[in-house]
This record gives sequence, structure tokens and C-alpha cells, in this order.
Amino acid sequence: MQEDSPKRGNRSLGQGHISIVGLGPGGPQDMTPRATEALAQAEVVVGYRPYVALLGEMTTSKEVVATGMTKEVERCQEAVRRAARGQKVAVVSSGDAGIYGMAGLVLQILHQEGQDRTIEVEIVPGVTAATAAAAALGAPLMHDFAVISLSDRLTPWETIARRLSLAAQGDFVIVLYNPKSQSRTWQLSRAQEIILQYRSPATPVGVVRRAGRPGQQVWISDLASFLSLPVDMLSTVIIGNSQTQILGKWMVTPRGYEL
Amino acid sequence: MQEDSPKRGNRSLGQGHISIVGLGPGGPQDMTPRATEALAQAEVVVGYRPYVALLGEMTTSKEVVATGMTKEVERCQEAVRRAARGQKVAVVSSGDAGIYGMAGLVLQILHQEGQDRTIEVEIVPGVTAATAAAAALGAPLMHDFAVISLSDRLTPWETIARRLSLAAQGDFVIVLYNPKSQSRTWQLSRAQEIILQYRSPATPVGVVRRAGRPGQQVWISDLASFLSLPVDMLSTVIIGNSQTQILGKWMVTPRGYEL
Repeated sequence: MQEDSPKRGNRSLGQGHISIVGLGPGGPQDMTPRATEALAQAEVVVGYRPYVALLGEMTTSKEVVATGMTKEVERCQEAVRRAARGQKVAVVSSGDAGIYGMAGLVLQILHQEGQDRTIEVEIVPGVTAATAAAAALGAPLMHDFAVISLSDRLTPWETIARRLSLAAQGDFVIVLYNPKSQSRTWQLSRAQEIILQYRSPATPVGVVRRAGRPGQQVWISDLASFLSLPVDMLSTVIIGNSQTQILGKWMVTPRGYEL
Repeated sequence: MQEDSPKRGNRSLGQGHISIVGLGPGGPQDMTPRATEALAQAEVVVGYRPYVALLGEMTTSKEVVATGMTKEVERCQEAVRRAARGQKVAVVSSGDAGIYGMAGLVLQILHQEGQDRTIEVEIVPGVTAATAAAAALGAPLMHDFAVISLSDRLTPWETIARRLSLAAQGDFVIVLYNPKSQSRTWQLSRAQEIILQYRSPATPVGVVRRAGRPGQQVWISDLASFLSLPVDMLSTVIIGNSQTQILGKWMVTPRGYEL
């Protein structure tokens, strides 16, 4: 556990409190007032370093516990420890804290340590990457969709592959989180192969990098060709269903209204 | 088309503009600054009457085109007509405008009428019901999930039933939008039957009514019993997967971290 700012002592201010806060895609314009308020109230902000960095001046005058990737458990344990001492803690995730974020882990640790009755918890929802990316692409999520993470760090690849196959069979629009990283290199092309078993190569595919953040990049391609795009760990991939169309510069999955 | 406020004339102010705005679950605390700003800039606000009503004073001094349920097409056509005249229009949906909201329809109409190059469009994402409900329940969406609407107004029931079955087979957490209404009475129990073919009756099920709005109600039940809860058209239903647990008062789908 590395600390980015000096400790300011163990103030004990009565009952501890943890806010688990979804920051939205990244810009202050997409962060809800409830999230802003939860951060303002917090004495300690805990999170993955790049997400804490997104907050900029909002963390001035606060203690910051920022850790690196794969340190999720330590981060949440530290948050619970601080709250048990009576501090007001905000645990931050980008997007929505309940979607592949920190909310589940904090609740598990609170329960495991028998602190779930003594520490007050608030979960503040945020704009998740699926909807931020969809808004940048047009309206690809107007009909039923499945959200699947391609990270096989905590989930066996067989489970992920089976979900990709069933979602493709069900003609769900498919949103891929964590599609690629420096070490996650082959999963996206395997996902493409699986989905191509059930869906046309011409199916529209949208890729949004840095959705809702400065430097946002948006591409609309198709299932045959999208692997040539520069997908990385900051990208969200949305694969259309059989109804999805490209209308001008937008990707749209019509809901079935008669026009 | 019914108008809730008198027309204020056809001001033509150059290029028309449409913001398609997700209001979030309902309270001002969960509406993003970008949504608030888009509404502030708009001359005309178009939406389903109850959602426009949620905005309260934010629509004072604006022209309001509020229509009833099932009038989505008329509403979006009117929005495009106004923008074609050069007005600044905000089309509002509760939650996220791109998830079973108005975004797709507006883009389709713009394209059909050849206005997609002349009218500027901005899509403002919001906090969708799935994440607002999840935050009220704990952290049920920490792993892959499927979002399915039980409304068979525009989608054949066979398609919905097939998606329910495949999502259940894939061990997706399942989020049900539009689970029930005065006329939609049998679909939820049919969904229960389908999911029970693949999932234990003890599977945790969460129901949130008025998620994120005043009077929010939250219940945690199980797949065998949840039909006894007062689910209605203001409710979101989240059906856990094989890993979902009830931890104290929270519903949590662990992501697989070792604790």
C-alpha cells in the first residue's frame, strides 16, 4: 500500500462512514452532484491511482490512499480500516462503482469483518462506460444487451467464452468491458470468432476510447474488421445485434417503432 | 400531441440543435451537470409527461411538449420539426436516454428525414435504472449481466423468452426493465419459470421501486418467492447469478477476489 499524501492523524469522529462512489466516465460534467457531495464530505479518498488523479482539485485537503492495479483487496481493506476508526471514507471507481468496480468488494470485506452493522455505507451510482460509449456512438443499446468483461484474471476463460456464445445466440447487443490490455492480447479476437458463429460479418461494431474524457475517440466498423482498430484498456467495444444499423455517422439499434 | 404550455412563437435562431438527455433515476442529485446544462440551454423540452414533471422548475420559462405513453414517435417527430426550424430542443428520458429511451428514435427520424447533417445532435448519458437499482441493493452487478425488457409491445414474446433462457443458461445476472404494468401482467411469472429451469429457487432477487427517487422501496427476496412483491412499472428487478449472495442487508455478486 503506497500513500500519495502524508497521514493527517487518526481523528476519530464517531461512527465511520463509507461512500462507494461512481465517478462517471471521467469529466466533471458527467459526475453526479451526489458523487461530488460524497467526495466533499469525505476525509479520506481511496482508489486506483489514475481514477483518483481524474479528481484533480477535488481531493485537495483530503487524505488520499491511491494504489496501483490489482491492489483492489488491499485498497478496500484499508478503506474499511479507516472507517472502523471513525473516518469518513470515499472509495472511488470510474464509471459506476457497482459494475466491475469496488462496491462488491467493500461490502464483502465489511461483512467478513463483522463491520456491516457499525459502519454506515452509501453507494453512489454513476454513468457507466456502456452508456457513455453508447452515447458517443449514437444509440446502440436501445434493445436488450449483455455486458461481458473479457478480463480472465478472476473468471475462467471458458465461462467468458460460454457467455459470449449465448449472448450472440440470443441476439443481444454485446458490450465488452476490459477488451484488451498489454497482457490481455488474444481474448478480443477469440470473442470475434465466437460471435461470428452466430452473427453476420457486416454487423456494426463501435469502439470508443476514453469515453466521456478529453481525447475521446470513436470508431464505427463491423464484426469482420474491427480488430484493426486500436482497442486498448481504455476502450469499450459495442457489438450490434441483427437489427443494428449505421445511420449516417451514428450506430443505432432500433427498438421496433413503426416510422 | 398535447401541449402543456402555450407556444411562444417560432423563433428561428440559426442551426437547430437537439440534445437527447438522460435525466438519471429522478432526483436532481443524480442528474449530471452535462444534463443540467443541456436543459438550461434548451428552448423547448420534449418528453413523456411524468419525466418532464420530474424536472420541476428547470422547465420554467421554456416551452414544454409533454405527451403521454406510447406517443414516442410523435414526440420525437415534433422534436425534429422544432430543431429543423432552428430551435434548441432537449428530448428527455429518465435514466439513460440510450437504454430503452428516446435516443434511437430521434436518430432514426433525423436520418429518415435527411436532417442528420443539418441538425446538430448531442447525446447526454445518464445514470440508468440498472445501476441506480443495483446501488440501492448493494452490488449485484459486479459480474457479467444481461439487461432485458419484458415489454412485448415492440418485441415478440418469443424473442424475450429466448433471451431470458439464454441469459439464465449463461449464468448472467439478469436485470429486468419494464417487468410489469397494468396491462403487462403475466410476463414476469413466465420469466420466473424460464429462469428457474437453470437457476436455484434460492437465487437472490432484488426489487427496487422508484430507484433513486423520493419514496424508493427496496426488497431482497429469492427466485422462488419474489413474485409476491409489489412489482410495477416503476420497478427494476435484478435476478442474481449462481454466485450472488445476501450479505447482511446487501445483495452482492462477488467478482472472485480472494479474501
